[in-house]
Amino acid sequence: MDNPLLAGLQQTLEREMPITRAMGMQVVSYDDQRLALQMPLEPNRNHQYSAFAGSLNALCTVVGWGTVFLLLEQASLRGNIVIRRGKIRYLRPVKTAEFTATAQTPKNTQYFFELLRSKGKSKLDVEVQMADQQGPSVKFLGSYVVQELV
Amino acid sequence: MDNPLLAGLQQTLEREMPITRAMGMQVVSYDDQRLALQMPLEPNRNHQYSAFAGSLNALCTVVGWGTVFLLLEQASLRGNIVIRRGKIRYLRPVKTAEFTATAQTPKNTQYFFELLRSKGKSKLDVEVQMADQQGPSVKFLGSYVVQELV
Repeated sequence: MDNPLLAGLQQTLEREMPITRAMGMQVVSYDDQRLALQMPLEPNRNHQYSAFAGSLNALCTVVGWGTVFLLLEQASLRGNIVIRRGKIRYLRPVKTAEFTATAQTPKNTQYFFELLRSKGKSKLDVEVQMADQQGPSVKFLGSYVVQELV
Repeated sequence: MDNPLLAGLQQTLEREMPITRAMGMQVVSYDDQRLALQMPLEPNRNHQYSAFAGSLNALCTVVGWGTVFLLLEQASLRGNIVIRRGKIRYLRPVKTAEFTATAQTPKNTQYFFELLRSKGKSKLDVEVQMADQQGPSVKFLGSYVVQELV
């Protein structure tokens, strides 16, 4: 992984959420607009060789968390990021050997940063999606709370 | 585990969702009204030594799944149970060495069974909660779809 920002996120996940290692969660790419993480099916499979819902939700939760993490890193801010609420829809079974979840970086982050700088605490909603050739398979919305570390 | 119904659920989880073994998920008790499963903090911790949200959601997802599984077992029906939607609120960090999630068996399951028997397919919403001495820490609602296996 050449991008130090992504290498930093991968190391943070492995250190701070060790069960993501057992799941084989890997940071894939980030282009300021979209963060993508992937996971192999094998350790996360169920008996029908589709992905266990709990693993899919963990992947989406971490992609949303990572999106907030990267926004803070790029703004040179340090914060404690916690998910407060999550909503997920499992539209179709996920059966590929590896699968990816992608978050859209929220478009308007101005209010998020203003509140964080003025109050030391803020909130951001992040949408995450999984899709294959047939279209979306999982849709997730997470609400993350950030407490600035000073 | 003396109860053969619970031993059957534990074996099913380990066989059909192997990542639950890495998480240390254990069936605890069931009294027709409430199913409880627990998990140790250590493999599921984050850097603050509270539980990783993805693990908490996986536990709640499986407790809801297990509730539907036990309802089918007790009715001598076989079905493929899939979660369709989940909503979760993380109210407070979970920091105990072991923690438990409990589902209330839905009160009115008559319509669920009628639809399953007439259409071969049905749906059930299950509420799951985690709590400690200070009150609720996690609230979860899962919608499960069952396809009868004949």
